[in-house]
Amino acid sequence: MERQMSDLPGIVITGISGRMGRMLAATVAASDKARLVGAVERTGHDWIGRDLGEALGGAKNGVIVSDDPLEAFAKAQAVIDFTAPAATLEFARLAAQARAVHVIGTTGFEKEQIAALEPASRHSVQIRAGNMSLGVNLLTKLAKTVAAALDADWDIEVVEAHHNRKVDAPSGTALMLGQAAAEGRGIDLDGMTESGRHGITGARKHGAIGFSAIRGGDIVGEHDVIFAAAGERIVLRHIATDRAIFARGALRAALWGQSQKPGQYDMIDVLGI
Amino acid sequence: MERQMSDLPGIVITGISGRMGRMLAATVAASDKARLVGAVERTGHDWIGRDLGEALGGAKNGVIVSDDPLEAFAKAQAVIDFTAPAATLEFARLAAQARAVHVIGTTGFEKEQIAALEPASRHSVQIRAGNMSLGVNLLTKLAKTVAAALDADWDIEVVEAHHNRKVDAPSGTALMLGQAAAEGRGIDLDGMTESGRHGITGARKHGAIGFSAIRGGDIVGEHDVIFAAAGERIVLRHIATDRAIFARGALRAALWGQSQKPGQYDMIDVLGI
Amino acid sequence: MERQMSDLPGIVITGISGRMGRMLAATVAASDKARLVGAVERTGHDWIGRDLGEALGGAKNGVIVSDDPLEAFAKAQAVIDFTAPAATLEFARLAAQARAVHVIGTTGFEKEQIAALEPASRHSVQIRAGNMSLGVNLLTKLAKTVAAALDADWDIEVVEAHHNRKVDAPSGTALMLGQAAAEGRGIDLDGMTESGRHGITGARKHGAIGFSAIRGGDIVGEHDVIFAAAGERIVLRHIATDRAIFARGALRAALWGQSQKPGQYDMIDVLGI
Amino acid sequence: MERQMSDLPGIVITGISGRMGRMLAATVAASDKARLVGAVERTGHDWIGRDLGEALGGAKNGVIVSDDPLEAFAKAQAVIDFTAPAATLEFARLAAQARAVHVIGTTGFEKEQIAALEPASRHSVQIRAGNMSLGVNLLTKLAKTVAAALDADWDIEVVEAHHNRKVDAPSGTALMLGQAAAEGRGIDLDGMTESGRHGITGARKHGAIGFSAIRGGDIVGEHDVIFAAAGERIVLRHIATDRAIFARGALRAALWGQSQKPGQYDMIDVLGI
Repeated sequence: MERQMSDLPGIVITGISGRMGRMLAATVAASDKARLVGAVERTGHDWIGRDLGEALGGAKNGVIVSDDPLEAFAKAQAVIDFTAPAATLEFARLAAQARAVHVIGTTGFEKEQIAALEPASRHSVQIRAGNMSLGVNLLTKLAKTVAAALDADWDIEVVEAHHNRKVDAPSGTALMLGQAAAEGRGIDLDGMTESGRHGITGARKHGAIGFSAIRGGDIVGEHDVIFAAAGERIVLRHIATDRAIFARGALRAALWGQSQKPGQYDMIDVLGI
Repeated sequence: MERQMSDLPGIVITGISGRMGRMLAATVAASDKARLVGAVERTGHDWIGRDLGEALGGAKNGVIVSDDPLEAFAKAQAVIDFTAPAATLEFARLAAQARAVHVIGTTGFEKEQIAALEPASRHSVQIRAGNMSLGVNLLTKLAKTVAAALDADWDIEVVEAHHNRKVDAPSGTALMLGQAAAEGRGIDLDGMTESGRHGITGARKHGAIGFSAIRGGDIVGEHDVIFAAAGERIVLRHIATDRAIFARGALRAALWGQSQKPGQYDMIDVLGI
Repeated sequence: MERQMSDLPGIVITGISGRMGRMLAATVAASDKARLVGAVERTGHDWIGRDLGEALGGAKNGVIVSDDPLEAFAKAQAVIDFTAPAATLEFARLAAQARAVHVIGTTGFEKEQIAALEPASRHSVQIRAGNMSLGVNLLTKLAKTVAAALDADWDIEVVEAHHNRKVDAPSGTALMLGQAAAEGRGIDLDGMTESGRHGITGARKHGAIGFSAIRGGDIVGEHDVIFAAAGERIVLRHIATDRAIFARGALRAALWGQSQKPGQYDMIDVLGI
Repeated sequence: MERQMSDLPGIVITGISGRMGRMLAATVAASDKARLVGAVERTGHDWIGRDLGEALGGAKNGVIVSDDPLEAFAKAQAVIDFTAPAATLEFARLAAQARAVHVIGTTGFEKEQIAALEPASRHSVQIRAGNMSLGVNLLTKLAKTVAAALDADWDIEVVEAHHNRKVDAPSGTALMLGQAAAEGRGIDLDGMTESGRHGITGARKHGAIGFSAIRGGDIVGEHDVIFAAAGERIVLRHIATDRAIFARGALRAALWGQSQKPGQYDMIDVLGI
């Protein structure tokens, strides 16, 4: 007997009208392992009350865009959320109330905000990652491994490239990679970075981790972790060419979360690497 | 009390007049952890009987180039050997007789020749690697790890670049990397490679490992292991810019071997990774 | 007074249901310099007679998919055509009859087919390129310039990477780049290539142009032209991450062609470089 | 009749004991188009009065290291000079007096110092370049050409990598490349650069030229000029792996200068590109 469509885990997407929201909608629609059961936007947005399919410029799909997250979450098994820190804190509370898995792709949290996410995770599965791609999370693991294997005569540099609208540097993913390298090497990243070299810098500080940021065109995201010694170099590189990888990673996390106990997880947990 | 120079492990270099022989001589001379006690060339070579320092165009260094390997090995703690398979087989036998560590950087062995190396290793430490650099051996380890973590929807390609005098393709190191990836993925490399694409190739075989060889200038050696999926790529890259890294790796192996039991080892053993 | 929408050059797209056809439809729809007036598919295709907007899964756009190219071309100022050689030969004849600019992105022509395109160009502007991107055509020009400036001690290698469904190697664009380099150097490419190195190749042939083909994932298209000498290398690289660049290039050609005399042109003409 | 050794242009090298001085000595010694006739060091250096061959650790070569530049220059046809600005200003005056070609690889000049070089060039051929390699000078030319062909929707980024002892960023060569791109685009580089991005940078400034500096290991020098637009990128890359290319470029300049009239020249002139 065929599995019924309605047996598939139901997903709600927050921030549906944004670039990641649309990408997530397309990814869930294309999946045969989940179904879209809700879409949330902020009160007052002109998509509220409309059929999502039509709002996206296609055929009706029966999902009505809502500004009532709790009602939407209550009908779902998972919430995928790439919005902003303040909104995500509220969604975490509501996801816990609805006992829905909360996949958090939101970035830019302050330390206090990260701490404020914890209580909700006592009642729901909370999966958070600064970058949801399989490749980047694997690279993070490798950066730590390589840094642990090599001594400080191997200079570590993290180089990232992103589109010309990005407003900060280095990227969160670059910092995550640098942090992993610092852990592998057994040093504290604070005070051991060289970022944004310009002018008379002096010779490179022995043992430091360097960061460079390239900006141009519509580059989705490229990260190199370079280990450079006398006569040789190792480079660990990740190239993202399609934002769909972040949506696919988030969906994978939502499905993985269905069989986990409440708590806080990251993509390394999801990928089992 | 200072350690005496004569306490340092004594090294003999075979094939001393070749490019790697000269590089090894310079590396041992520059080291404060070993001393050069012998240099071997084939009978009839015009360096035989000459002072090595002078033969290299510098000042005398007291090492006389010899065509009697056994006599040379008998005075040494280790032999470093980047010659050719037939010569290396003979040197293995003599190193065992002299109880000297035998570091083998020679490449191009047939399977039978590799088997024929084994008996000598019952009496001496034998360390053999297709590539003696720290970085390449680490990369090999990483290639296996990544291939094990990813499914076959990630296409694996090994791309190498070498100088324009290289006569075979792909490089031995590229094959070593491909072999590691195949092991990580749990497949047999035989019959699962695509090498030297040209003409109507058909679509890429799912699960295959591809090889490409670039030749130009005096490129020392560059290797990429690419894992390419929909929307993202991971690249593991090694760049060698100075052949001295192979000599330094060989010397490190020779020193490491001083405290090992007889047997066959590779650079992964030496590096402890 | 505002320019009327109906003053804009009208475009017909052939092979509308294919990947490039859809991409072209989206590109023309997004442009404020042209309007879509027709869409052609082969007789029997189930889109024939349907509204194109609906067939593409969106709202109606008033363009009815047709299997009568001449009727469609007669209403248009330009035809954009990424189909197959045989179809393109017929479209060339009909475009000439309709006095419409014919932009040809079709590849895989035999020499005789290329010759057979010429008669139509006496009555219509015909713009044909193996690759319609601005960047690749500029790179072609650079490859020729650099090859002319350097002597044959600089080894030239063309390396390309494409998705895993590509069935031939090297790519047409790689061959175009190699041809440009050969012209710059003043040699005939025939008999001076090394493509698909595998096994005992012997040393690199002095003056030859090498080709390598990497296949993996969904890589849109990447081309390197490497000039490698002793101690230094120049690399000219093009990276395409979005097929829309080919559609945008084709539309630019269609617009440029409006003010040209009948004849055969390529993208270098269009770009004026 | 064979050309006599003594017919070859005689070269004097300044700063002979430094890394570039030694490299230059080896390059001239290996050339069959020039001969070394003098070597200069500062008064008090312990090489003064010694045979250069011996000082370099090899056999005598008959050239005595001198601290009297004018005497040395008077016997030569060319002076090759990679020292420091103040010394180079004095050497320029003396080279003019000796009517010797003055090849200047010195960097770090102030604007006033550059102006102060001019008078000497009325009496001698003066060839100055921030980077003497053939490849970098060709790349400079290409960067200007490409920038002139593309509009400001193509973001320009210059990325350079050097060894970990380099004390300033970006490199002089990177600035030379950025300057060339600015000229191609018809903008003034001052006020239009983004260098050393770190923290909240805001979106990339439209039309700006970005600079990034990577530092690690013993990287000789690598430069990328990236042109990034929506969906595609062009990268012009130069990789130097051996400082000998700068020495070879300088020697080529010294030979080229033999047949020129007094005046100021650069490597673009020498290469005729």
